[in-house]
Amino acid sequence: MNPLPSCLVTCIVLIVLCGASWTTAAAPKNVILIIGDGFDDQHVTMGRNYLAGMSGTLILDGLPFRGAVQVETLSASGQPKYVADSANTATAIATGRMTSVGRIGTDIADRDLPTIAEHAIGAGLRVGLVTTSSITDATPASFLAHVSSRSCEGPEEILGSTYYGLPQPTCPQDAKQNNGPGSIVEQLFNSKAHVLFGGGQKFLSQITATGESVRSLAEKNGFRVITDRDELSEIRTDQAVIGLFDTENLEVKWRGSDGRRAAPTETSWLHSLSDFLGEARQPEIMECEPNPAFAATPELAQMTAAALRQLSASNENGFFLMVESASIDKQSHKRNPCGSIGEISQLEKVLALSLEFAGRHSETLVIVTADHAQAAQILPEPSHYSDYPVPVYSPGHTARLRTREGSIMRINYATNNGFSEEHTGANVPLFANVTDPKLLKPFMKQRDLYHAMMAFLGLKSSENSLKD
Amino acid sequence: MNPLPSCLVTCIVLIVLCGASWTTAAAPKNVILIIGDGFDDQHVTMGRNYLAGMSGTLILDGLPFRGAVQVETLSASGQPKYVADSANTATAIATGRMTSVGRIGTDIADRDLPTIAEHAIGAGLRVGLVTTSSITDATPASFLAHVSSRSCEGPEEILGSTYYGLPQPTCPQDAKQNNGPGSIVEQLFNSKAHVLFGGGQKFLSQITATGESVRSLAEKNGFRVITDRDELSEIRTDQAVIGLFDTENLEVKWRGSDGRRAAPTETSWLHSLSDFLGEARQPEIMECEPNPAFAATPELAQMTAAALRQLSASNENGFFLMVESASIDKQSHKRNPCGSIGEISQLEKVLALSLEFAGRHSETLVIVTADHAQAAQILPEPSHYSDYPVPVYSPGHTARLRTREGSIMRINYATNNGFSEEHTGANVPLFANVTDPKLLKPFMKQRDLYHAMMAFLGLKSSENSLKD
Repeated sequence: MNPLPSCLVTCIVLIVLCGASWTTAAAPKNVILIIGDGFDDQHVTMGRNYLAGMSGTLILDGLPFRGAVQVETLSASGQPKYVADSANTATAIATGRMTSVGRIGTDIADRDLPTIAEHAIGAGLRVGLVTTSSITDATPASFLAHVSSRSCEGPEEILGSTYYGLPQPTCPQDAKQNNGPGSIVEQLFNSKAHVLFGGGQKFLSQITATGESVRSLAEKNGFRVITDRDELSEIRTDQAVIGLFDTENLEVKWRGSDGRRAAPTETSWLHSLSDFLGEARQPEIMECEPNPAFAATPELAQMTAAALRQLSASNENGFFLMVESASIDKQSHKRNPCGSIGEISQLEKVLALSLEFAGRHSETLVIVTADHAQAAQILPEPSHYSDYPVPVYSPGHTARLRTREGSIMRINYATNNGFSEEHTGANVPLFANVTDPKLLKPFMKQRDLYHAMMAFLGLKSSENSLKD
Repeated sequence: MNPLPSCLVTCIVLIVLCGASWTTAAAPKNVILIIGDGFDDQHVTMGRNYLAGMSGTLILDGLPFRGAVQVETLSASGQPKYVADSANTATAIATGRMTSVGRIGTDIADRDLPTIAEHAIGAGLRVGLVTTSSITDATPASFLAHVSSRSCEGPEEILGSTYYGLPQPTCPQDAKQNNGPGSIVEQLFNSKAHVLFGGGQKFLSQITATGESVRSLAEKNGFRVITDRDELSEIRTDQAVIGLFDTENLEVKWRGSDGRRAAPTETSWLHSLSDFLGEARQPEIMECEPNPAFAATPELAQMTAAALRQLSASNENGFFLMVESASIDKQSHKRNPCGSIGEISQLEKVLALSLEFAGRHSETLVIVTADHAQAAQILPEPSHYSDYPVPVYSPGHTARLRTREGSIMRINYATNNGFSEEHTGANVPLFANVTDPKLLKPFMKQRDLYHAMMAFLGLKSSENSLKD
């Protein structure tokens, strides 16, 4: 048999390529943005060491794109600040604009910033927000709400609340009573989102300024409201759905042995006489175990799978889905490394099914990133100075975890002496399933992520659409 | 004028491409490996915030490749450990093999591991090691020496030394007296390296087992030995050169105002009665200033420029150059953020001139990475909990730096209560001037870097060449 002439081969290749490109262009474009709250490189490595072993790899390690994202925060007067919170960081990712700590979808002049989720809805795409926190928490809120403070979660909180006993900021200008758009939950439930999954059942019974309950507001707006994870498999794909599966934040999947967290090092009485005397008794080794309180809680992957079904069914316009593993951060605040690692395992499962979805829907951009760095550090076990004949120990809280491969991983929390650790300021990792250099660069600012996702979806920013 | 026929245009393009590829193939291949000791993402961000501003970019942020490297450490019995030191990490990068803390170019069975520098010398390439530490320190040592402990730096130390008063390991089996290859400095000066720049003058006068001084050993082996930075511009390029510019490690470039470092927070007497009472007085704000002790010290970039001249002059075989900014780590151990940041600025200058060299010598791979993560963390200023009516402060040492853009960057060191902070276990960043996916992947293990550099240089590993 004679070989085909080379010009014919070229023609065939061109036809195949053109065909592929034509098919691709017709597919709806989707973005799945996975945010690990506080999921910095120390936490990524904690997760890898525990879940895959020192020489193992997480699913996210196999993604073809990896870079770093600089977190930018402003003071109320616009001066650079070097450590963020989840409100100003989610606002940067959602709107492409910098703002100050605590602000939700607003700039430092309190102007409302249009979000990628709002642009997507405006262009006929579906939008979903899925989180293990309350759906009103800072990260999901920043994609569809605009208030001056993250504390204004419900119609009650917008007028006043406390956090660990401290009065929190109110948002009087945003309250319905003052002709504002209302609290975060009201704005979320007045949005045209297609899926809102997380915690926050307590807000359903709160009463809005018009005298109706938040639940009836949601239902009036066409949402089906579910509160049991078993209902996730039964929902009609043509109806928008709100799923709230706990009173506030969802329970976490794992805990330390018998609920133990990191603890201060105990020292002998001699040590109180001198830094060089006495003995330091390191906390006992612990393991991670299932958290009994998690029992009736849906897995983040279960919520994500349901969200993907809702968003993709009979949808030719594509979607924007934000999925947050929120308690990597919240458990790090509480010095609970097993709590954080369990939530990293939840993020990994979400990534696995997102990649599987992207395999079936080729025009799907999957991004994984963190919003800000967090307190936990992996320390030597034992200390590199343990040969010195003086007590050497962390001045903070320490946990010693036995990993699945049988080694001890020591985790340190020592950013403050209080009830909750501080965020930290390192740039955070960025992972993606595509390597298009026009879209993603090895080093980006957090607000660049907004522009990358907007460009992928073919959406246009409306720079002049700021609303006072 | 008629346009050129398209077949002619195609031919011209092909000829140009073939010509370029022919020229490239003929150029010698070079690797410049820049190691920032302890240069993890917290330190990268500290450097960016101070040197370029929160929204600025470092030179390394502009590199086309960025990834992450997992650090792997073994216990003496081969069990995974989650925090490394500079000896086992440099050994992994230099040899492609994992080993235990403190080991230099040897595995946990004390077998000598062939290094990329030795393979390069064997293949006729030139080799240079440049560092701000003593040339005998763990990182440079691991590229050309093989001993069981990093403490065996000189013919005196190999038989016994102390570190902060603690007796350090000896390496009797490596000593010349026992027919071993000798201490680190002896092995370095018996190597066929072309350039060895750093500190460590104190070793020149030590006497080897054969009764000669280390200086005379070096000169007997054909090295020119210089100890004054002014001589860097005068050296003949055809002679191998050792430049030692300080007794041990080189002085660092910057320090805090009046030499200040991070300090513990002072609390009022009431606070000794209860955690909830009294006041915490945060350390005063400081700025970074030139370190007067640095005055006669060569900049790392000056040493690197001289090394590049030495390595590239009349050299058709290419070279392997390792440049280490060693005191990012050493100053972080000492809780001196300005010290670390000044050494990050030194690394940036080295990167600038390496990229400029690569621009003129196209077959030059420039890699920047860290060996392990370190203690420093950027914390909120003020604390995110400063509104609470109780003293909230770091239990460790804190510095508050005024940056060039006028904000305050708070740096925390709280990994232990001793005289020197601990390393930490996060994966470390990787930057390069090339994006060849066959060479560099978004996630690599530290030992993979050895294989990537070997492949770039066209060198072959000799897996069976382990020496007992």
